[in-house]
Amino acid sequence: MWVFLNDRFVRKEEAVVSVFDHGFLYGDGVYETLRSYGSRIFMRDQHLARLRRSAEAIGLDIPIPESQWPELLHEAMYRNGIGNAQADAYLRITVSRGTGEIGLDPSLCPRATVVIMAKTLHPTPSALSRDGVALTVAKTRRNLPEALSPQIKSTNFLNNILAKRESIAAGTFDSLFLNWKDELTECTISNLFFICGGTLHTPALDCGILDGITRTIVMTLAQEEGLPVQEGHYHLADLQRAEECFLTNTSMEIMPVSRVDSLAIGDGRPGPLTRRLQTRFADSRTRFLEPAS
Amino acid sequence: MWVFLNDRFVRKEEAVVSVFDHGFLYGDGVYETLRSYGSRIFMRDQHLARLRRSAEAIGLDIPIPESQWPELLHEAMYRNGIGNAQADAYLRITVSRGTGEIGLDPSLCPRATVVIMAKTLHPTPSALSRDGVALTVAKTRRNLPEALSPQIKSTNFLNNILAKRESIAAGTFDSLFLNWKDELTECTISNLFFICGGTLHTPALDCGILDGITRTIVMTLAQEEGLPVQEGHYHLADLQRAEECFLTNTSMEIMPVSRVDSLAIGDGRPGPLTRRLQTRFADSRTRFLEPAS
Repeated sequence: MWVFLNDRFVRKEEAVVSVFDHGFLYGDGVYETLRSYGSRIFMRDQHLARLRRSAEAIGLDIPIPESQWPELLHEAMYRNGIGNAQADAYLRITVSRGTGEIGLDPSLCPRATVVIMAKTLHPTPSALSRDGVALTVAKTRRNLPEALSPQIKSTNFLNNILAKRESIAAGTFDSLFLNWKDELTECTISNLFFICGGTLHTPALDCGILDGITRTIVMTLAQEEGLPVQEGHYHLADLQRAEECFLTNTSMEIMPVSRVDSLAIGDGRPGPLTRRLQTRFADSRTRFLEPAS
Repeated sequence: MWVFLNDRFVRKEEAVVSVFDHGFLYGDGVYETLRSYGSRIFMRDQHLARLRRSAEAIGLDIPIPESQWPELLHEAMYRNGIGNAQADAYLRITVSRGTGEIGLDPSLCPRATVVIMAKTLHPTPSALSRDGVALTVAKTRRNLPEALSPQIKSTNFLNNILAKRESIAAGTFDSLFLNWKDELTECTISNLFFICGGTLHTPALDCGILDGITRTIVMTLAQEEGLPVQEGHYHLADLQRAEECFLTNTSMEIMPVSRVDSLAIGDGRPGPLTRRLQTRFADSRTRFLEPAS
């Protein structure tokens, strides 16, 4: 397995950083995860734009010219023998503040650390996608946007890890976060949607959620399907009235939710509008891929 | 420079971790900073107890037996030629989740990574301690305790780094955080105290602050001095009425604050009760050190 580190590809065993890297000392970094369908990366430029926005939000200079990313991502796939007809690729870009003396001042670190990892993307088990997944409402609340905005994809992930531990303890697929005002937000690595009275609802960005790339696509596809879409401020009581519910992210696409704690969503099975959106997503996917090379 | 890494001391250049360490990928770790006066570590057992509490709060097993820490800390000082009559030591213990596959589940990482760094502790410039420091009230709010409690000393430090960047931009010593309810909390690496009407005030723990070890000592010493101490929920308006203000942490001890944004505290110079507590702290310090070896 090959990993890109700063300026070259190295073997996984050689892909190491100093313990003085502020990514390790402070979680001072940002990241993106991308995927390919075959050799073509999904929403590549949107992911790269968000990486840039995350870095800007924490004042981090990314020492890779914009124009080099596509080539580096493809080399990461090629070197690992993935991103082809046999294996879709999962890619993770991490940019940390780099190595420097102990201290919070970013200027202690002269140069950011850049890492690209690539591995085979294993499709979501079809049983989950067919039957839907169960969620736990986490006791852990989502990060306060004014403290650390969930729109920054940072390597400060303990908030998510604490919630994930709750779902692992409960034996469910993932945790659903409420925010500081008891509003629905998102899960640990995905956005939330639910359908109520024929309208597709999803928490508004100012609830404190990631501006998910698949979230945006699903909203577009729903509108194209004639399904009204509403972003808003919702509570658990709204989920009790929901007929359908699903999660979205880059690697899972659209994942039906059948249960939230003891509450069955609808009749406890993925509903027809979720199915319609899954089909529409699969049929439309090519629009969102980079051109075939 | 020697760094302890997992099971042995290595040269700084060899002190590296995998880019798959969840400390690097997710900031999934905890830490403590300690200091010595000469060879004796200040509040050693209290720091080690807090490290254990932080680790427990995120479900992290520390693979070092409790009884080994004192020896390791002293070896870290000895190997680096510090922690003696010539140089006090600054020590940082970091324990991250360790190396594992990409994913939030802590069980992906079979063994935590342990690092001990030691360097000379340079005393606070005497001009700061004499004249006091200026603070900026950060736009960044302190982490929501229900999202990631400030009582967990974790390596998720972006909240603090964002606030630190604000004070750097403003040219001040540090940033003062408000919480989600506009209450005073703490600075990026220190606790806040102020004196009003002869009473020493400090934000209560449930404002969302670190349970600082020096904070506790200062509260004890103040009571011994006959100074009433009150923990409470305070706002910026309370600082406007304050006669004196100071910060506490392990390495600065008691640092007077002369100004908060455009507001001068008292007459803009460190006040008599702050001086009395600084003297009392210096005179009492030996009580809080580990026994001389």
